[in-house]
Amino acid sequence: MTMSAKLLVQNCISAKLAVNWDQFKSGEAEKIEYVSIGEGLVVFVCFREGATEDILPKIASSILNGKLYQTDGKPKSVESDVEKSILIIPQATLGGKLKGKQVQYHGNISKLDGKKIFERFQDILKRESKETECKFGKYGNRQVLQMDTVGPFSHIFEF
Amino acid sequence: MTMSAKLLVQNCISAKLAVNWDQFKSGEAEKIEYVSIGEGLVVFVCFREGATEDILPKIASSILNGKLYQTDGKPKSVESDVEKSILIIPQATLGGKLKGKQVQYHGNISKLDGKKIFERFQDILKRESKETECKFGKYGNRQVLQMDTVGPFSHIFEF
Repeated sequence: MTMSAKLLVQNCISAKLAVNWDQFKSGEAEKIEYVSIGEGLVVFVCFREGATEDILPKIASSILNGKLYQTDGKPKSVESDVEKSILIIPQATLGGKLKGKQVQYHGNISKLDGKKIFERFQDILKRESKETECKFGKYGNRQVLQMDTVGPFSHIFEF
Repeated sequence: MTMSAKLLVQNCISAKLAVNWDQFKSGEAEKIEYVSIGEGLVVFVCFREGATEDILPKIASSILNGKLYQTDGKPKSVESDVEKSILIIPQATLGGKLKGKQVQYHGNISKLDGKKIFERFQDILKRESKETECKFGKYGNRQVLQMDTVGPFSHIFEF
């Protein structure tokens, strides 16, 4: 099975993302707008060539129900156990491979298809999350992020 | 070839890591001590079972010489092109695999061997970096981190 998506999940106690950095830099937007969460998960996602909507419910369920949120005790899920928030950030660089000194991004989804599937992913996450607040970065933009953690407990998952 | 190490590399404009969080929490240390960097790379590393010292120069070279640092132009290397800093953080969770809702960490290196190889990795990075300032987290501790980015440009590499 070919890989359809790559996920990086990090824990945070707060995270703040600029959602219109590119538009601000180009003069299209007058000021930088942010989305932010408190305690929860920062989830970076990269879709690969051939990714289809079929995979999205499984990825959404893993984020919401996977025991990925650590406090001092046992890992918990954001949806059922701790009711925290998640911030989903498109991150095409996750598909990079190092060849010598250069990183190559062969096999990533096209920008147009990536945007479509990311939007569908947003719908599914919003639909599936009963207790979890979901916030999102803007597809195709530079993701200017600040985060504060008591341990990122970084996980990488492939689908 | 079996995978010996997993790396997560993120860009930052500043990062600050508590290096004795566990010791402070247990009362062994009186106050929290930090290491911090300005612009550069935050590098999370997880060694896997069977990792040996042979692999370390290649990993070190990839971090120092790989074009992983992004500004507004072309990606650059921290060692030759931009002379930034790196913060290396042990992160065993990178070796996790999601099985249902649980994350399993089969195949990670033992804590004792991990500590040894991480210390050797520190020596090699210090030796190989002429222009790059290298700072390190403490192996086996919780890695309490704050970071500020103009885009993390997250990359995952396996060795």
